[in-house]
Amino acid sequence: MEAGVRDSKLQLVVSHIRAFPDFPKKGIVFRDICPLLKDAAALSAVIDLFEDHVRINYQQVDLIVGLDARGFLFGPLLAQRLGVGFVLVRKKGKLPGATVAVTYDLEYGTAEAEIQEDAVAPGQKVLLIDDLLATGGTLYAACQLMRKQQAEVLGCLVVIELKELQGVDKLKPQRVFSLVQY
Amino acid sequence: MEAGVRDSKLQLVVSHIRAFPDFPKKGIVFRDICPLLKDAAALSAVIDLFEDHVRINYQQVDLIVGLDARGFLFGPLLAQRLGVGFVLVRKKGKLPGATVAVTYDLEYGTAEAEIQEDAVAPGQKVLLIDDLLATGGTLYAACQLMRKQQAEVLGCLVVIELKELQGVDKLKPQRVFSLVQY
Repeated sequence: MEAGVRDSKLQLVVSHIRAFPDFPKKGIVFRDICPLLKDAAALSAVIDLFEDHVRINYQQVDLIVGLDARGFLFGPLLAQRLGVGFVLVRKKGKLPGATVAVTYDLEYGTAEAEIQEDAVAPGQKVLLIDDLLATGGTLYAACQLMRKQQAEVLGCLVVIELKELQGVDKLKPQRVFSLVQY
Repeated sequence: MEAGVRDSKLQLVVSHIRAFPDFPKKGIVFRDICPLLKDAAALSAVIDLFEDHVRINYQQVDLIVGLDARGFLFGPLLAQRLGVGFVLVRKKGKLPGATVAVTYDLEYGTAEAEIQEDAVAPGQKVLLIDDLLATGGTLYAACQLMRKQQAEVLGCLVVIELKELQGVDKLKPQRVFSLVQY
């Protein structure tokens, strides 16, 4: 993709993200991706940019792994573009059959992320996807799940990165690719 | 789409749905769509069949409206195929800004479904999408949300319909299109 095309696609993406101060609570600026989903060209631009990044940086990708629930909005689209499958990381208790879970910290308390035991095979090369990188807790848990199943995490893709929360550091040595940074 | 092509796509879809008896509790057979997502050709077949149905039956569709969380897996794919936007119906408390909510019954207790107030405009023609139709409670709530905002619901699309739970009756006069029935 030419730099000019990439820039104009990025501009389209940025212009479809809204800021809501003090949501879900005081002091937090919530980045709302709903306008991005509601505009067919803007959503296509998101996937164009992810696809371009993946094709340039990775020779082989076996699966896209998306996080519950907003990773589900983008993951299947990217997976279809790449012609590969999509795997769901869900909150605990949602997936039937034999599962593998890891616990991760929330601001208050903990939560569990879960995959089906047969979701990934040893050696498979996977990319993780979510809408937003904040502290990185959920993506870190997803990386652990992949390692438990001996899959190889190539990197993490997010639409939005909140830089001050330093999620990129938490996820090291995994590489994170974000389209928009705040 | 020719009948033979449609049949073979349907077979591909059916063969990628697994049954798990007694999940999430005794007496329930859980229909697992994870294999469908994990197979690029099978997932593409789902969207092919939905797209075909929509193009045959509706002259104009303005938006695809998807239900939290598994409706998010299919909705953006169909919306992109049709070149229209995607709107999220979420569980209460997840969406920023001005919202509209309706309460609906669960087996035990109630839940609330919510959209952003500006998600749909009066007169817009929308199709609702989810992975599965059981009793129809959530899709019914989503229809109510659309009516509150004076959008026109053209119909509901689901991958799987559990016939004995009679969700189709609950949703009448809305039309329901399902790919696979149990």
